[in-house]
Amino acid sequence: MTAKFIVIEGLEGSGKSTAMKVCAELLKNAGIDFITTREPGGTPVAEQLRSVVKECQGEQISTQTELLLMYAARSQLLENVIRPALAQDTWVLGDRHDLSSQAYQGGGREVDAEVLDFLGQYVLDGLRPDLTLYLDIDPALGLERARGRGELDRIEQEDLSFFIRTRERYLALAHADDSIYIIDASQSMEQVHQALADVLVPFIAEQ
Amino acid sequence: MTAKFIVIEGLEGSGKSTAMKVCAELLKNAGIDFITTREPGGTPVAEQLRSVVKECQGEQISTQTELLLMYAARSQLLENVIRPALAQDTWVLGDRHDLSSQAYQGGGREVDAEVLDFLGQYVLDGLRPDLTLYLDIDPALGLERARGRGELDRIEQEDLSFFIRTRERYLALAHADDSIYIIDASQSMEQVHQALADVLVPFIAEQ
Ligand SMILES: Nc1ncnc2c1ncn2[C@@H]1O[C@H](COP(=O)(O)OP(=O)(O)OP(=O)(O)O)[C@@H](O)[C@H]1O
Ligand SMILES: Nc1ncnc2c1ncn2[C@@H]1O[C@H](COP(=O)(O)OP(=O)(O)OP(=O)(O)O)[C@@H](O)[C@H]1O
Ligand SMILES: [Mg+2]
Ligand SMILES: [Mg+2]
Repeated sequence: MTAKFIVIEGLEGSGKSTAMKVCAELLKNAGIDFITTREPGGTPVAEQLRSVVKECQGEQISTQTELLLMYAARSQLLENVIRPALAQDTWVLGDRHDLSSQAYQGGGREVDAEVLDFLGQYVLDGLRPDLTLYLDIDPALGLERARGRGELDRIEQEDLSFFIRTRERYLALAHADDSIYIIDASQSMEQVHQALADVLVPFIAEQ
Repeated sequence: MTAKFIVIEGLEGSGKSTAMKVCAELLKNAGIDFITTREPGGTPVAEQLRSVVKECQGEQISTQTELLLMYAARSQLLENVIRPALAQDTWVLGDRHDLSSQAYQGGGREVDAEVLDFLGQYVLDGLRPDLTLYLDIDPALGLERARGRGELDRIEQEDLSFFIRTRERYLALAHADDSIYIIDASQSMEQVHQALADVLVPFIAEQ
């Protein structure tokens, strides 16, 4: 059995952090050795980059800068955390990964596919999640939930149209890739929990 | 007359900061309206990235992360400082710019030309310095001078072979580009001052 890389994806307030707990519990119950990560972030350097991206402190951050910082943080996490864990047969459960850049930068910010492909190839070097659980939600509902948690960060303050484009890209990417499962995140917590288990439990059993 | 973009380049301790003062004085004497910049850095966000790149705090920074951070900082400076200045007919005098990435990342770190070309095209979008003054120095002498100034940062702590490859790349790039002048930085301060003036004074007069 080789270690697997599982990623939770979705818009703000879609319930990723909540789903991380559910999935961690399922992995634990199955006796699997795993670590959790979050992006952008997950190493001291990458966490510094996360704060730069989330808190602009008045300065306009260009689309290019944002994109390059996301991949800089991802590169750092891949080299120092994800690849070493998988190499030691430890599973990785991630709160966001490359699909977020494809959806937010590609869909939301409308960065050219060619640019994303180039950075993806350079940084990921062929590494792909084995399973992605995409929590699909209406952006208005997600932002309402996120707002319930407190202040919105720089990206959360974008127009609704930005998140609508991001969601459309998420859905298009999910439809084109068998390893990405779409979970209806507008359901109750219990229903989402069940939907996650319905995918993850058989996935674990297959290994 | 359109505003010009002038860049000072060279290894650590080659005398870039000293040359910046000399060139600023020459521009001032010619009555030119200009700003100065430094890379990586020059905006609040880019300065945060500069600290991340210079002070690793124990964590290994991958070649990829370093490269992407350099271009993220450059993108931020270009969009928020350099392009707006040139558009308002203000000259820009820069302490390092893209040639540093080509020499340090391309030569020192041996990053593929294809990767550097892609990032250069994406971030610079055709913007090129009008004049580059490259201060050429034996790395051992430069590092000795830099050491005289205090603690060495993460990059300054590299092996001599890293700086030898970087210098070789600087020289190759300078030989292939008419807008890059090589200044022998092993000379006395007075001689370097004179060599800078010998290039910059006629350059200003031509505009
Ligand atoms: N299915 C659900 N129904 C109702 N509320 C939910 C549901 N899932 C999560 N929530 C609540 O919505 C809020 C956002 O959830 P959570 O923090 O898990 O989202 P997230 O995707 O991690 O957001 P972010 O992208 O900001 O990290 C939390 O207060 C959470 O308790
Ligand atoms: N031509 C020279 N001869 C002798 N010493 C010099 C000369 N030029 C500069 N120095 C001294 O060498 C040291 C490094 O110079 P400087 O700070 O200008 O280099 P730098 O290229 O800006 O370095 P860094 O890349 O670290 O910023 C300083 O102490 C400076 O006074
Ligand atoms: Mg979360
Ligand atoms: Mg200097």
